[in-house]
Amino acid sequence: MSVKLGPNRYGKAEARLVRVVRDGPVHHVKDLNVSTALSGDMEAVHLTGDNAAVLPTDSQKNTVYAFARKHGVGQIEEFALLLARHFVETQPTIRHARVEIDEYAWNRGGPHSFVRDGGEVRTCVVHHDRDGRTSVVSGLKDLVLLNTTGSEFHGYIVDPYTTLRPTTDRILATAVEARWRHTGDTSSYGKSYEEVRRCLLEAFADTHSLSLQQTLYAMGERALTTCGEICEIRLAMPNKHHFLVDLSPFGLDNDNEVFYAADRPYGLIEGSVLREDAPDAGFAWE
Amino acid sequence: MSVKLGPNRYGKAEARLVRVVRDGPVHHVKDLNVSTALSGDMEAVHLTGDNAAVLPTDSQKNTVYAFARKHGVGQIEEFALLLARHFVETQPTIRHARVEIDEYAWNRGGPHSFVRDGGEVRTCVVHHDRDGRTSVVSGLKDLVLLNTTGSEFHGYIVDPYTTLRPTTDRILATAVEARWRHTGDTSSYGKSYEEVRRCLLEAFADTHSLSLQQTLYAMGERALTTCGEICEIRLAMPNKHHFLVDLSPFGLDNDNEVFYAADRPYGLIEGSVLREDAPDAGFAWE
Amino acid sequence: MSVKLGPNRYGKAEARLVRVVRDGPVHHVKDLNVSTALSGDMEAVHLTGDNAAVLPTDSQKNTVYAFARKHGVGQIEEFALLLARHFVETQPTIRHARVEIDEYAWNRGGPHSFVRDGGEVRTCVVHHDRDGRTSVVSGLKDLVLLNTTGSEFHGYIVDPYTTLRPTTDRILATAVEARWRHTGDTSSYGKSYEEVRRCLLEAFADTHSLSLQQTLYAMGERALTTCGEICEIRLAMPNKHHFLVDLSPFGLDNDNEVFYAADRPYGLIEGSVLREDAPDAGFAWE
Amino acid sequence: MSVKLGPNRYGKAEARLVRVVRDGPVHHVKDLNVSTALSGDMEAVHLTGDNAAVLPTDSQKNTVYAFARKHGVGQIEEFALLLARHFVETQPTIRHARVEIDEYAWNRGGPHSFVRDGGEVRTCVVHHDRDGRTSVVSGLKDLVLLNTTGSEFHGYIVDPYTTLRPTTDRILATAVEARWRHTGDTSSYGKSYEEVRRCLLEAFADTHSLSLQQTLYAMGERALTTCGEICEIRLAMPNKHHFLVDLSPFGLDNDNEVFYAADRPYGLIEGSVLREDAPDAGFAWE
Repeated sequence: MSVKLGPNRYGKAEARLVRVVRDGPVHHVKDLNVSTALSGDMEAVHLTGDNAAVLPTDSQKNTVYAFARKHGVGQIEEFALLLARHFVETQPTIRHARVEIDEYAWNRGGPHSFVRDGGEVRTCVVHHDRDGRTSVVSGLKDLVLLNTTGSEFHGYIVDPYTTLRPTTDRILATAVEARWRHTGDTSSYGKSYEEVRRCLLEAFADTHSLSLQQTLYAMGERALTTCGEICEIRLAMPNKHHFLVDLSPFGLDNDNEVFYAADRPYGLIEGSVLREDAPDAGFAWE
Repeated sequence: MSVKLGPNRYGKAEARLVRVVRDGPVHHVKDLNVSTALSGDMEAVHLTGDNAAVLPTDSQKNTVYAFARKHGVGQIEEFALLLARHFVETQPTIRHARVEIDEYAWNRGGPHSFVRDGGEVRTCVVHHDRDGRTSVVSGLKDLVLLNTTGSEFHGYIVDPYTTLRPTTDRILATAVEARWRHTGDTSSYGKSYEEVRRCLLEAFADTHSLSLQQTLYAMGERALTTCGEICEIRLAMPNKHHFLVDLSPFGLDNDNEVFYAADRPYGLIEGSVLREDAPDAGFAWE
Repeated sequence: MSVKLGPNRYGKAEARLVRVVRDGPVHHVKDLNVSTALSGDMEAVHLTGDNAAVLPTDSQKNTVYAFARKHGVGQIEEFALLLARHFVETQPTIRHARVEIDEYAWNRGGPHSFVRDGGEVRTCVVHHDRDGRTSVVSGLKDLVLLNTTGSEFHGYIVDPYTTLRPTTDRILATAVEARWRHTGDTSSYGKSYEEVRRCLLEAFADTHSLSLQQTLYAMGERALTTCGEICEIRLAMPNKHHFLVDLSPFGLDNDNEVFYAADRPYGLIEGSVLREDAPDAGFAWE
Repeated sequence: MSVKLGPNRYGKAEARLVRVVRDGPVHHVKDLNVSTALSGDMEAVHLTGDNAAVLPTDSQKNTVYAFARKHGVGQIEEFALLLARHFVETQPTIRHARVEIDEYAWNRGGPHSFVRDGGEVRTCVVHHDRDGRTSVVSGLKDLVLLNTTGSEFHGYIVDPYTTLRPTTDRILATAVEARWRHTGDTSSYGKSYEEVRRCLLEAFADTHSLSLQQTLYAMGERALTTCGEICEIRLAMPNKHHFLVDLSPFGLDNDNEVFYAADRPYGLIEGSVLREDAPDAGFAWE
């Protein structure tokens, strides 16, 4: 029987980079987790172990640190693009680069002192290939949200395995993972990040929800219609169940006051919203 | 501006199911983590919160437990297929079901006593849709392997950011995540699992490695050429770096005896091997 | 050979409780993780399985939820004291109760909408026994801090295994775990929490550090001398190493600008500061 | 107000060490996680940042790797003792050393190929001080056990918050953390480890349990009465709840066949068994 090599890529994952910028006595800090992945003419290395086409993952990592020194970091999308273009443009064997960056936020505690902001993580995934095609997806993850009311769930299918009771008032809680695709050049990745994040928070807070799907769509729609530079948004939102505790055995009522926050299982709602005229995504979501 | 709903799915993730089978005084146990995800006519629930097409995730979870009682669990692929077909066949609004199962192994400690086997986790992902198309991908993850010799790395590209020294003897360590696609009906998922697992272990152990890519390909090739019922295998293998500690400041040599096992960053090698005549994958890898 | 039962305790760990308080349209939320542990006349249950002295851990959990409804939660120290006293006072077989609570903070996103604050976790451990002795330890964990300058390390012992170079300028980063013991009744646990937290942050930011130990002591001393209601503070502070990357192979200098943030190993500094006249701690730290 | 320094220690935590021993073509591997903690004359470093008494944590780490080369690793208790004695004996400012080691097991897959055994982790904590006192505590953690029958729970206290139903047949599952104190010199730490481990497994499997406390005591008693070289054992055993799923809404019975394995909350049973003539523990458990 005859077999062949299929899709493949390789790189250095999770290079933890902290970049300090000194503005006199006032310092600034960028805290990143950078992963690079390259693909190209890789038949030989897989079939015979001939590494002639392989830029070592160690060199990829060195490039990340050296570029942070030479060029600074700026917006993570820009830093990712810089790296992706570098690998494709300088190595004839590399046909495609994918660079993924997570950014952890810090709040200022003094001129050179910082307190880690434990909230959501800002993310990006950038692709660039030998044919000059480029894609930029920005995002966030671990943004944990909760509404104590304004959420209903009823009118669903009742099949022989349905025991859930309909409700007109429940807790709605989730940990948002959102990724949005830029149409082309974006004027400011920092500004569009703040804009999308604000839309997500506001739509979660002010949507009276009949289902988590409805809330998800409202959040995506708000982001797309507000931020003109993005054409598609994908959201993954677990339904972090908060179960009302039955206190009647103890002679107590429980009018949506005391909840048990469960770990597993959880609902998982995944959906996307895109402009009617969104260009083809190509490899953006790979 | 006009926006629309894109790809979406929803379901219950990580329902932890333990199924006991009593064979007189001798018991058997199956320990699973089951996730279901459905898609279909879901415009209304996203746009208006109308849940008429929605089978609650709670009902999906109930089905998992009820089916475990009614039908038993058997091989995880079979249980996943049973569930996926049920959802599509009984609910007109559901066009596609994806069922993912992780299985944790237990070793026997007595007739009804068990010791958790902390090794690799067996996995599967099954798809079934309204047009009768079905795919089965089996796999494993967290299989941690290490060779103390028989691994070289040299002859790679040396660019301005390359400082890595070539080596003819290093530790090679990885945590294998493997997923393999079945061509059609498989006679025994249990048997093919054991076969593929054995191929992966043996090829890792007996391949003299010039690169982790070569080892990866050898492992995939061995599985494909041995197990006739699968047509494609995808492998993700981190290069878990073990750095030789420089003991020369202490007047000691270190001939590949003392290593520092690093956490991050790590190399990440992803690749696939497939038969020349492999049928189209369709939605198998989604 | 003769053996006997030694120290023991049992309880329910990690009951996740979310308590909503409705103030008209404006809601408030408390998000807790509660663990109870009881001890007392437990010879029989260990030696023969006679449970007559055992209050089930399930009942302990029920008490947590019922008390949240009946009494509200308030400051976590007060809720823990309420629970601890209840168990000891209502069960003749229970001689000692230990209640531990973690509190997760949420920021307001709307009248009934909240965004999880991913920063530090507020903690407490309370003991109460049949002889009426009570102790209260408050604390926080996962408070991640970083100074980009103002930290030196030199003048240490140089033994045959020392290769570290002295430095007059390095990054100092840590994740603070702090626990402080209250002398007696504290007027407001919320107020003292804010006070101690502020002291820790300020002393970390404004201490020019010659060692992490010095910074730790300065933080503890600041808290003790500012907050009159506590008599001892214990701190555990990992030295989260940020290594300056050597960029000289690439013709680049690196004047404390580009760092690699390492995971393991890490320094671990543990120390305590207490008032000269601190009363005996008794079981407070168990 | 006057404050002072209380108990303190410092060291390097989690140095990941892999030691290879080459016996011709057959290799052996030891995989450890080593943490050292020293204490002594540390007033100056805390109060003024004078590091003259401080052996850097980096030097401690170097010592771990150098000693692995010079002396080999052998049993983890012996390696820990070697390190602890070295620090106290060579540094006048160090009065006390604590060394903690975790060992990860590997199964052989070939002459120089290994498969990580994902089961329990072997542990030890060793203390040694300037007065020549030494203690050795060995142990294991993450040993996950499950009995599908032979476990009852009834006859407990029923208070106003008790809703639990008594049962004469339930699943009993736990993750054992055990630590045992050696009386004095132990002839073979490897042999005593295997002996204690076997006792724990056998007593868990063959004790008909009326409470998890009874099982815990039986396990400890078995270990103590079998292994003459230890005088005390401490066990922490979560009750990993497996709830019988109510399938009656679906017209199905469930005679202890289908269970939901819950994450949190969990029971937590902690207890110790010791010989009547056990010598004083001193600092062994710190």
